[in-house]
Amino acid sequence: MNVERLKAAIRDVPDFPQPGILFRDITPVLLDPDLLRAVIRLFVDRHRDRPPVKVAGIESRGFILGAAVAAELGAGFIPVRKVGKLPAPSIQATYALEYGEATLELHVDAVAEGDPILLIDDLLATGGTAAAAASLIQQLGGKITEIDFLVELGFLNGRDRLSDYTVFAPIAY
Amino acid sequence: MNVERLKAAIRDVPDFPQPGILFRDITPVLLDPDLLRAVIRLFVDRHRDRPPVKVAGIESRGFILGAAVAAELGAGFIPVRKVGKLPAPSIQATYALEYGEATLELHVDAVAEGDPILLIDDLLATGGTAAAAASLIQQLGGKITEIDFLVELGFLNGRDRLSDYTVFAPIAY
Repeated sequence: MNVERLKAAIRDVPDFPQPGILFRDITPVLLDPDLLRAVIRLFVDRHRDRPPVKVAGIESRGFILGAAVAAELGAGFIPVRKVGKLPAPSIQATYALEYGEATLELHVDAVAEGDPILLIDDLLATGGTAAAAASLIQQLGGKITEIDFLVELGFLNGRDRLSDYTVFAPIAY
Repeated sequence: MNVERLKAAIRDVPDFPQPGILFRDITPVLLDPDLLRAVIRLFVDRHRDRPPVKVAGIESRGFILGAAVAAELGAGFIPVRKVGKLPAPSIQATYALEYGEATLELHVDAVAEGDPILLIDDLLATGGTAAAAASLIQQLGGKITEIDFLVELGFLNGRDRLSDYTVFAPIAY
């Protein structure tokens, strides 16, 4: 599968979620069976030789790719969730958004000391969300093998904030 | 895989999200690679002979199972989302919760007339969320082949509200 074919399927939605923002909508990729499989294969092939023990996906679009990649790699799946959603003992990380802040949570028992963990989300923007998720995993002793995104908004320089990690994003704007 | 082994892995969390509620936490199932694969296989095997064209998952735990099942079946994936998250033209359904109400959205271009669609969520409680999601799919001409859950809380009689559909839930309380 040519990455250009994936990129061509992404829909640009101007002024969402607010005026001036050009939203990159991946739902047409998910809707096409061939493209959905191609995306999952893209990530799986990258890690098949040295699969992580667990794949963590960030709520909620990271759940879509993360769980499918985990199952295919024979790894467990960890949901990194917005505050108040995880029922068992959890740790939290609060991080800045453009306006205000947000909090992510991780179950304490989701990560064992030394676990190699692949972190997945759909889109790399400023990198704040992924950095917060990675820090939670590391707090529990997990080792981030890589952070994978389907799409990267390069002009927001999110990789700068993730410079401690290997970052992979096949589609860039 | 014995369903009892899956059930044994589900964690009971008393008083979450509010006092008096016994929360059935599926995250230990997701975290175990064998159980994660077994759950996906359970749904995939059920539909392999007559696969749906699309699998719809309800935000956000329905995304975890839905996308993996879709990819495995060679179907496309449709996210049914909470209000305000989908960027393209959408239809909405508002439904009652125990306290207040909630609204789900579906992209208008996610469903084509006559599409056989499998709807997936993690847990069947009162059935209100799944009924709202199914009604959105049907409004766009989709045909619900089945509604699948991992867990059913039988004492809430959610199947009564979903009596127009075939419902499958391997783990029941």
